[in-house]
Amino acid sequence: MTDRLSAQFDFLLEAEKLKSVYRATPLADNSRRENSAEHSWSLALYALILAEQAQPGVDVNRAIRMLLLHDLVEIDVGDVPIHSGNGAAHDAPAIQAAEAAAAARLFGLLPADQGAGLRALWEEFEANETPTARYAKSLDRVQPVLLNHAGGGGSWIEYDVTLPQLDDRIGTKIARGLPSVWERVRAIVAPWFAHRGGNA
Amino acid sequence: MTDRLSAQFDFLLEAEKLKSVYRATPLADNSRRENSAEHSWSLALYALILAEQAQPGVDVNRAIRMLLLHDLVEIDVGDVPIHSGNGAAHDAPAIQAAEAAAAARLFGLLPADQGAGLRALWEEFEANETPTARYAKSLDRVQPVLLNHAGGGGSWIEYDVTLPQLDDRIGTKIARGLPSVWERVRAIVAPWFAHRGGNA
Repeated sequence: MTDRLSAQFDFLLEAEKLKSVYRATPLADNSRRENSAEHSWSLALYALILAEQAQPGVDVNRAIRMLLLHDLVEIDVGDVPIHSGNGAAHDAPAIQAAEAAAAARLFGLLPADQGAGLRALWEEFEANETPTARYAKSLDRVQPVLLNHAGGGGSWIEYDVTLPQLDDRIGTKIARGLPSVWERVRAIVAPWFAHRGGNA
Repeated sequence: MTDRLSAQFDFLLEAEKLKSVYRATPLADNSRRENSAEHSWSLALYALILAEQAQPGVDVNRAIRMLLLHDLVEIDVGDVPIHSGNGAAHDAPAIQAAEAAAAARLFGLLPADQGAGLRALWEEFEANETPTARYAKSLDRVQPVLLNHAGGGGSWIEYDVTLPQLDDRIGTKIARGLPSVWERVRAIVAPWFAHRGGNA
């Protein structure tokens, strides 16, 4: 038990580093960028609060656990902003390989049985195939949309994002896991893009 | 459903403010103070990772939900550092009343049934009587101890804390919810206090 506890403390101390990984999205008050630890907290809270929007087959407690863990690999790999073009356009396989190596290192700090279980949970999230993973992934995509909107544009301005690009890169994916939520979020953010287009 | 979703978005946007509430404890690398949102993420992760240390009767999923919500009242009230003397020595009833008012406001943003359920979860945490609440409270007390130790002293230096004070204010309380964890943590941190005493 003692050795297991020591390994668990090592893992928890290493996880602290996620508080120093910063994302493209600013906070709602634009005071600074969001870090990946507080982002993970937001997503777990989203999973709890929006549970009634989940589709059949979603295990909300499992989704919360997934979201607590989902960004830990960024301790080694950093955050790849979705609108930067770095993820989709090129090097996606290289990023995936780096994240898999990070998962092996990080979950490898834990007792073997525990680490294997949590790594499988992270892999389920990444594969985005089970209803629970799709729910969690959709929340990971929708929260930055609401945060950018609250902050007056955020990373949409930095990366000059249009509404069709938002639909294509994010909206269609959110709609698969959380159709009712995306319908509402799109209605909330569309005027921002229309207003910006009118000013351009 | 639409009105419920609107209320849920209002709550989630309000919750973002927890990212701007700063605590007495510095991050492990001493780069800045920890905020209450990322602290809440840490605690939920602690609850997940240390589940096998929990005493009989603890519902780990419920503890995780509690810990995601437990500090939201600080959006209105701020954080009261445990070593500052502001909580225990004076005004504890005033702080409790302010936190109860904050809980009423914040959970009141949600649909009534949902808000009442989550407010009851927060009250269970505060009452610290059920095994699940005691597990969550003990994690809330142990994480800053490990963080202060990792950072070379943190708020122990700021508030000039001794090991007997740590035992009295925190240790005896952690030991009730997580005896095996406190025994180990005390062994980890005791040399720091001994070394500091030797230098004083």
